[in-house]
Amino acid sequence: MNISDTICAIATAQGGAIGIIRISGYHSIAITDRIFFPVGNNLPLAERKPYTIAFGQIRKPLLSSKSNDQCCKNTNGKNYELIDEVLVSIFHAPHSYTGENSVEISCHGSSYIMQQIIALLIDNGCRLAKPGEYTQRAFVNGKMDLSQAEAVADLIASTSESTHRLAMNQMRGTFSKELAALRDKLLHLTSLMELELDFSDHEELEFADRKELHAISLKIEKLITGLMQSFRLGNAIKNGIPVAIIGETNAGKSTLLNTLVGEERAIVSDIHGTTRDVIEDTVNISGFTFRFIDTAGIRETTDTIESIGIERTFKKICQAEIVLLLIDSTDSQNRTTELFSKISKLCNDKKLIIVYNKTDLVPENAQNYINVISHFTGITASTNTISISAKTGKGITELKKLLVSLTGTSISPNDVIVTNIRHFEALSRANDSIHRVNEGLCLNIPGDLISQDLRECLSHLSEITGGEITTDEVLGNIFKNFCVGK
Amino acid sequence: MNISDTICAIATAQGGAIGIIRISGYHSIAITDRIFFPVGNNLPLAERKPYTIAFGQIRKPLLSSKSNDQCCKNTNGKNYELIDEVLVSIFHAPHSYTGENSVEISCHGSSYIMQQIIALLIDNGCRLAKPGEYTQRAFVNGKMDLSQAEAVADLIASTSESTHRLAMNQMRGTFSKELAALRDKLLHLTSLMELELDFSDHEELEFADRKELHAISLKIEKLITGLMQSFRLGNAIKNGIPVAIIGETNAGKSTLLNTLVGEERAIVSDIHGTTRDVIEDTVNISGFTFRFIDTAGIRETTDTIESIGIERTFKKICQAEIVLLLIDSTDSQNRTTELFSKISKLCNDKKLIIVYNKTDLVPENAQNYINVISHFTGITASTNTISISAKTGKGITELKKLLVSLTGTSISPNDVIVTNIRHFEALSRANDSIHRVNEGLCLNIPGDLISQDLRECLSHLSEITGGEITTDEVLGNIFKNFCVGK
Repeated sequence: MNISDTICAIATAQGGAIGIIRISGYHSIAITDRIFFPVGNNLPLAERKPYTIAFGQIRKPLLSSKSNDQCCKNTNGKNYELIDEVLVSIFHAPHSYTGENSVEISCHGSSYIMQQIIALLIDNGCRLAKPGEYTQRAFVNGKMDLSQAEAVADLIASTSESTHRLAMNQMRGTFSKELAALRDKLLHLTSLMELELDFSDHEELEFADRKELHAISLKIEKLITGLMQSFRLGNAIKNGIPVAIIGETNAGKSTLLNTLVGEERAIVSDIHGTTRDVIEDTVNISGFTFRFIDTAGIRETTDTIESIGIERTFKKICQAEIVLLLIDSTDSQNRTTELFSKISKLCNDKKLIIVYNKTDLVPENAQNYINVISHFTGITASTNTISISAKTGKGITELKKLLVSLTGTSISPNDVIVTNIRHFEALSRANDSIHRVNEGLCLNIPGDLISQDLRECLSHLSEITGGEITTDEVLGNIFKNFCVGK
Repeated sequence: MNISDTICAIATAQGGAIGIIRISGYHSIAITDRIFFPVGNNLPLAERKPYTIAFGQIRKPLLSSKSNDQCCKNTNGKNYELIDEVLVSIFHAPHSYTGENSVEISCHGSSYIMQQIIALLIDNGCRLAKPGEYTQRAFVNGKMDLSQAEAVADLIASTSESTHRLAMNQMRGTFSKELAALRDKLLHLTSLMELELDFSDHEELEFADRKELHAISLKIEKLITGLMQSFRLGNAIKNGIPVAIIGETNAGKSTLLNTLVGEERAIVSDIHGTTRDVIEDTVNISGFTFRFIDTAGIRETTDTIESIGIERTFKKICQAEIVLLLIDSTDSQNRTTELFSKISKLCNDKKLIIVYNKTDLVPENAQNYINVISHFTGITASTNTISISAKTGKGITELKKLLVSLTGTSISPNDVIVTNIRHFEALSRANDSIHRVNEGLCLNIPGDLISQDLRECLSHLSEITGGEITTDEVLGNIFKNFCVGK
C-alpha cells in the first residue's frame, strides 16, 4: 500500500437518494478538477477555499469516433457525456478526516452514476481505496490512534444507545487517555528500575526501595485487571447481553419472551431498518440490547432423555450473563426446587433472578406461597426475586428495570470499557507481564529481568493505540525526572 | 401537506460509512443551529455563508435527572450527550435542490446516530419528509417541471448507460423543451382559431385559411405520434429489451443463452451489486439491457401437446421486441421451415433475426446449406441472417452488434425518448384530441368545437410537465402575435 496514492471510494450504501464518493490524497483536488465542470462560478476547485461546496457537472469525455452522436461539447470543443450534476466539498490537509487533501462528491444515488464517477477518477490517476484505508490514513497522519480508529467501525455499526456510547467514548479517546495514564505510570516505574541498573555504582544516588516499586507495580496490575474485567460488560453490550430463561415447561417461558419482545419489536425494527433472523430474541431495553436464550423446559428427572434436556439447559446457563429462573406460582408440585441447588451452583458467577410467574392466577392472600420457595437450599438475601404475570404484563416493567440494573451501573460518557477482543488480548499479555514484575519484586530477582518484563508490559499496552516505546523514550523519561550528576 | 414546514429525512441507504440527513425549509438552518455545536470556528450556521461546510458536534441535551451521569456539559452548563461529530453543508434559498434554505448533515453511517439526529431535528421543529417531498418542493418552487422531477427517480434507479442517458436527458429538460416547442405550436394554432371566433365580425381582418390550419395541425399530430412511438423503445430500454429465442429443441438455445449471459454476468453483477432472480436472462450489451425470453423448443407438430407448446412459443413472440429464430445448420430435417410463414407473420412488427447455429459442425464448403433456407416462404431481403456457433463463440460478437443495432440507432444525449407510462398516456390523450382537430378541420366543423379539442390537447400535454394553460395565456398569445384594430 502506497500512502502517497490518491484514493477514491463510494462511501454510502447502495439504494439511497444520495451517493457520496470520497477522494483523499495529495492530488485529490487536482484530479477532481479534471472531471468536474463548475456551474455558475467558473473557478477551478484548486483555487477555491477549503470547507466550501461547488455545484457543477461530472463529464465523461467521449472518443472522437463517437463524435457523430449529437453529444455535448466542452468549452475546449471536445465531446463529452454528462454523467451527473453534483456537489463537491473541498478539504485541505491537514483539516480533513484523513489529514490529507480530500474531496467529497455528492451525486444521485444511482449505482451506474457512482461506478462511472469512480471509473473516471481511476482514469485520471486515483486508485480504489482498500477497506478501512481512509481511517488507516487518518491513523498514519496522526489524526487518531489505533483504538480510536477501531472505534470508527464500531460507531458506524452501532444500533443502540449503549453500543453507540461505548464506540463514541473510545473514538473520543477516553480509553486512549486511560492507557496513556497507565503508560506514564509504567514508564515512571521502568525509569526507576533502569536508573537503579545504570547508576548502581554511584553510591551518592538514592533509589526508590523495592517496597515502593512493588506498591506502584501492584497498582498498575490492579488497573489493568480492572480494564480486563470491563471487557465482559463491553462485549456483552456490543453483542447483546445474554439472558437465559429457564424453568419448567409450563412455567410460561414463551409468554414471557413474547411479552418482552412484543412490546419492543416495533422499536427494534425501527432502529435496525431490516429484519434479522434473531429479532424475536433480541430486545432493546433502555438502550441495552438483551439477547434472550430460549431453553427447553425442565421436567421430571427420572427419564434419561429429560436428563439430557436438563444438561442442555445447564449448558445454556453457562453462556448467559443473566439467568431468569421462571417459576409457576400456581404449581405447588414445582420440580425446580429440587434442582435449585444445582442451578444455583452454575449461577455462581452469573446474575440470577427468580421470577414468580402467573401471579394473576394466585389469590392475593395466597401469595405467601412465594415465601415457601425460600426453602430453596442456597438462596441468599442477595438473590433477586420478582413476581410477574407474563400474560397480563404485571411486573414486566419492574423486571426490565431489574435487568438493566444488573448490567452494571449504566455507562456514563466517560466510562472506560474495553469492547475489542484485540484490546482485551493485549491487556491480558500486559497483565501477564506486570504480574511477573510483581512476582519478581517479591522474590527480589535481579533488576534487569524485572526491567525486561516492564518493557514487555509497555509494549503490549502500546499495541492497543499503535504507538511505540523506544529506548530513547525510556531514557528521555529518566533524564526528565531526575537530575543526574548534578 | 404544508409547504411551509421544515422537513428532514435520511437521504442515504443503510449500511454505508457515511450517512446524509437532509433538512429543507425556511427554518432549516435555525433548527440545525439548535443541535449543532461548531468546533474551531464558533460562528453559528445562520451567520455563515452559503455553500460552506461547518465541522462540529451534534449534541443531545440530557434531562436534569440524568445529571448524575458523568456526562459532558455545554457552555451554558447544561448536560448533553455527544451523538456524533459531523460536517454540515449550508444552502440558502433559492440556490438549493429544493429552492429553499437547506442543510445537509454528513454523519457516520450508523442507524442509531441517524435516528438520533432525526429525532433531535423533530424535537426542534422539523417534520419527517414524505417520499419524494424534496423533489416535490423543487417542482413547487419552480426548480424543475414534473417530467424532470420524475426523471430524478429514474436517474437514481439507473443501472446501465442507456437507462442513465434516458433519465439524464429527461432531467436536463430535453423532453420538456420538446414539449414546450409542441405547446408553442399548439398555442399558435389555438390563437389562430380563437382569433377567428372572436373577431369573425371584423371583415377587415384576415384569418389563416383552414388549409393552412390543417397543415399545422397535421404536423402537430405527427410530432405527438413520434413521441408516442419512442415510448416503445424507452420502455424497452428502461425494463430491458425483450428478446425471444425460438427454435427446435436441439437448435442450441440454452447454449446460446449461456454464451450470451456467461460472458457478461460478471459485468452485470458488478453494476447491480446485488443478485437478481432473473440475472441469468438479463444481459448488458453496449449499455443496453436485453431481457432474453426462453421458449420451449419447437418439435413435431402432429402431437396435440406439442401444438400447445408451439402456441406458447407464439405467445412469447408477442411479448418480444426482437425475435431470434435459431436454426440447427446441421439438421436438414429442420421443421422450422414449415412453421416459418406462421412465425414470420407474428414477427410483422418485431425485428426478426434468423440465426444459423452449429456452423462449427458444418464443413466450410457445405455452408451453402444456409442458402437453402431462403426457400422459406416470406423471407425478405431485409430479414437479418447471421451464422454463429454458440459452442465455440464464433459469430457471437457480430450477433451482439446486430442486437444493439436493432434497438434503433443508439440514443444520443439529445434524443427525446418517452419512458414514463404517465407521459405516454397523456400523449395518447393529446393525440386523440389533435386527431379530432384534424378530422374537424377536414369536415369543416365549427371553429368553437375545434377550439375546444385544441385546448384539451394543450391541457393533456401540460399534464406531463405540470404547468397549466390559462385562458389569459391563450389571449396573451393572441395579442402578442397580432396587432388587432390597428
